[in-house]
Amino acid sequence: MLPYKSLIQIDRQSSITLYIQVCNTFISLITSGTLKPSDVLPSSRVLSELIGINRNTVKLAYEELISQGWAESVDRKGVFVLSKLPIITKIKLPETHKNQSQEGFIWTNSFEKEFALSAKIIHKDPIVIDDGFPDVRLAPIDQLMREYRSLSRKFYGKNFLKYGSTMGSENLRIAICNYLSNTRGLLVSPENIIITKGSQMGIYLASQLILNPNDTIAVGISSFTTADDTFKYRGANLERIPVDDNGMDVDFLQEVLQHKKIKAVYIIPHHHCPTGVTMSMERRLKLLNLAKEYRFAIIEDDYDFDFHYDNKPYLPLASIDHNQNVIYIGSISKTFAPALRIGFMVGPPAFIEATASLRKMIDRQGDTLLEEAFAVMFENGEMERHFRKSLKIYKQRRNHFCELLSADFKNEIEFRIPEGGLAVWANFNESINLIKMSDEAAKKGLSISNGNFYKNDTFSPNAVRMGFASLTENETEKAFTILKSIF
Amino acid sequence: MLPYKSLIQIDRQSSITLYIQVCNTFISLITSGTLKPSDVLPSSRVLSELIGINRNTVKLAYEELISQGWAESVDRKGVFVLSKLPIITKIKLPETHKNQSQEGFIWTNSFEKEFALSAKIIHKDPIVIDDGFPDVRLAPIDQLMREYRSLSRKFYGKNFLKYGSTMGSENLRIAICNYLSNTRGLLVSPENIIITKGSQMGIYLASQLILNPNDTIAVGISSFTTADDTFKYRGANLERIPVDDNGMDVDFLQEVLQHKKIKAVYIIPHHHCPTGVTMSMERRLKLLNLAKEYRFAIIEDDYDFDFHYDNKPYLPLASIDHNQNVIYIGSISKTFAPALRIGFMVGPPAFIEATASLRKMIDRQGDTLLEEAFAVMFENGEMERHFRKSLKIYKQRRNHFCELLSADFKNEIEFRIPEGGLAVWANFNESINLIKMSDEAAKKGLSISNGNFYKNDTFSPNAVRMGFASLTENETEKAFTILKSIF
Repeated sequence: MLPYKSLIQIDRQSSITLYIQVCNTFISLITSGTLKPSDVLPSSRVLSELIGINRNTVKLAYEELISQGWAESVDRKGVFVLSKLPIITKIKLPETHKNQSQEGFIWTNSFEKEFALSAKIIHKDPIVIDDGFPDVRLAPIDQLMREYRSLSRKFYGKNFLKYGSTMGSENLRIAICNYLSNTRGLLVSPENIIITKGSQMGIYLASQLILNPNDTIAVGISSFTTADDTFKYRGANLERIPVDDNGMDVDFLQEVLQHKKIKAVYIIPHHHCPTGVTMSMERRLKLLNLAKEYRFAIIEDDYDFDFHYDNKPYLPLASIDHNQNVIYIGSISKTFAPALRIGFMVGPPAFIEATASLRKMIDRQGDTLLEEAFAVMFENGEMERHFRKSLKIYKQRRNHFCELLSADFKNEIEFRIPEGGLAVWANFNESINLIKMSDEAAKKGLSISNGNFYKNDTFSPNAVRMGFASLTENETEKAFTILKSIF
Repeated sequence: MLPYKSLIQIDRQSSITLYIQVCNTFISLITSGTLKPSDVLPSSRVLSELIGINRNTVKLAYEELISQGWAESVDRKGVFVLSKLPIITKIKLPETHKNQSQEGFIWTNSFEKEFALSAKIIHKDPIVIDDGFPDVRLAPIDQLMREYRSLSRKFYGKNFLKYGSTMGSENLRIAICNYLSNTRGLLVSPENIIITKGSQMGIYLASQLILNPNDTIAVGISSFTTADDTFKYRGANLERIPVDDNGMDVDFLQEVLQHKKIKAVYIIPHHHCPTGVTMSMERRLKLLNLAKEYRFAIIEDDYDFDFHYDNKPYLPLASIDHNQNVIYIGSISKTFAPALRIGFMVGPPAFIEATASLRKMIDRQGDTLLEEAFAVMFENGEMERHFRKSLKIYKQRRNHFCELLSADFKNEIEFRIPEGGLAVWANFNESINLIKMSDEAAKKGLSISNGNFYKNDTFSPNAVRMGFASLTENETEKAFTILKSIF
């Protein structure tokens, strides 16, 4: 007889009644092939003693087993596994097979390379030079929790637990209107805003609605890889436009427009990812005029607006556009904490309405309670205080980081002190193999990108983004000590 | 001169320095057309007195304005708006235009009808007979907040604020493994699970990866409308299969398979949406064998598993499948609180990996801190206790709801007492116009669906899903009093 004592695990805390638990265990034993067709089951008396439950419970379990068509009762012989069950033999989950299951169906595989790569970048090691992320240790998480909790306790707060608007919390949309007009001179109303899960969801929604398969979107020769992937996933063709010290080369774009239909242009006006350059006001105005003339959409990814150390941000294109050709994407996750996914997208009301109806199929809506808590923090000024405080700290860190970088690596690394943003674009001496460097560093407890993430068919620098914001001055020194030991 | 005193609003709390605020205001005045090209700006002395800021601040603002190419300084004459600016006139955002912006780009519009409709169902009124939602007043939100907050305060908790796994929290995936094996006899490991934003994201991810445009997916003649929309949005064709009292008619499906390639079958085995029927074990086994023979994927949407009032849930198909043809989708939002978007999808590791790389483009990842808090609540048994407690309450509410329903509406409504789930499928007398009824009810303070949401090209019943779980017995009585007053 099988070792039922160990095979049948009873959980008296479970909400599932005992006899169903027993019944279900037998079914798994049958479907897993441990019990074969026509096998006899132990008598209710024996089993009840073995696993220490009431005999009637076992009888109920067997009745259920029979009623569900897994077993049959034979007079004076006992209960048997049904003989005419489909023969099923347990298949171990294979390790590495791709694109189809053992027996079965086929699916599309998307971008595992990038996925694997960026997974690597994510802090496994004590010290991480990241891609330019905020320091979550600075996030006013206690204040957020206080608001979150107090909202949940209010009577009306319960409503924030029910299904809510796919556009996001009305209060947060209003708060973001004020924030946008105060910081960016961007004057919009809540009907122009949808709350997203970070800026990435904005990029995804915009690409799905603006692009059709085989449409062409203009992007930088260097650009944000995940955005490239998102457009490719939509089936769009990428038209690569040069990016110099003043951002995307709009004159070059104009040439292209002469002979090619461009559906949209994706830009990161400050600070371009990965190189960190800022687009000049002249080019911003020219791009807007081109958009009007050639009727393309501008997808303005401004995730980085809030970090300017010399306090001279240009206005976003969205603030100057009056032809509604700009879709403006921003993020709070980048300024607060990446794992709290709050971003926003701004556009014409009818467009925002369309994104909402698509969003409804993707994840229905955001986390209303969290959105409301953020709204309160905007209203009571906590968010402003946090931005101001972290900006000051990041500026110090940037200065210290860049001083050390030029002092310690003058032969290895070439870079410019970034006006804003959270990362330095570090060009390494051609003699340095970044993949080796990254692996070496990892062994010594330093996680740093190998640069592959920034490469594409037209751009292959020997460079890495070095995030300085999430490291204290002390941590930066430790990181550089490890890095030096490699060269 | 313009009323600068009111036009220029200074925020001394802002992280943006004063002169940039002044500069930005002028730029909006220019781009909005309030200030025309060649207009003269007030002298720094005048403006500094008008708005009460230091004169040098105004000078800085003007310098910035000039350096950004908006204005020019003319010796001994003052500062003027540049004459050769592109003429931009403010366009008011239009109200109702669709599919393209004023001047500009075109986009795809997805399913506004459904969007608008279900938006209507969402609690505007004091009493709501919803689509079958949980009662958020029962959710152990205090415990969740406690865990959420205490995690955020722990040293390691800070890591839950950084970028994390696109698959979701490892701890929650482990917790859900245990939960699935205890409640469903579904034995999987974390590599088989991705945490999603409710079950809807599971449906979306699966449809994107399994279906290609023009592929065919089999769904019920009646089915979950938002799922239908999600498949249609992917460009798939829907093959409608009859659904009777034992669930989807698998024999009918077999006929279809003879002459048609089916890529996937979407089922809601218990309880079918909208009609609430449960698929028999015999059909479950047959469907699994068909999947193996014809190599199609089964998308098993089991959002409703946890609500069985007679404690006799059948095992999910996923628990019996050993050919990895079943993608199993579940949700905690439905059992806890809809606005806390936590669901899961189970499948072969390579498939889950592929969904993760797609998910990365959609919203990067979930809210790690919330996922970790849920994990703790599974581990410490709070979740089990909540399920058990709400199950007991919902059963009482179902019984009371159904007693009243048959007593008060014997001539108007035909229905069966549901074995599980949170809603009654109520067939109304043909003489009753549901749209009129819904509107009438709304006027009297009762929100109830008009039934359109459940209709499709092959299914047009005079019926509505009546959710009983979110109403106390007292509220149910009030709701029915209003409903009676209409007939």
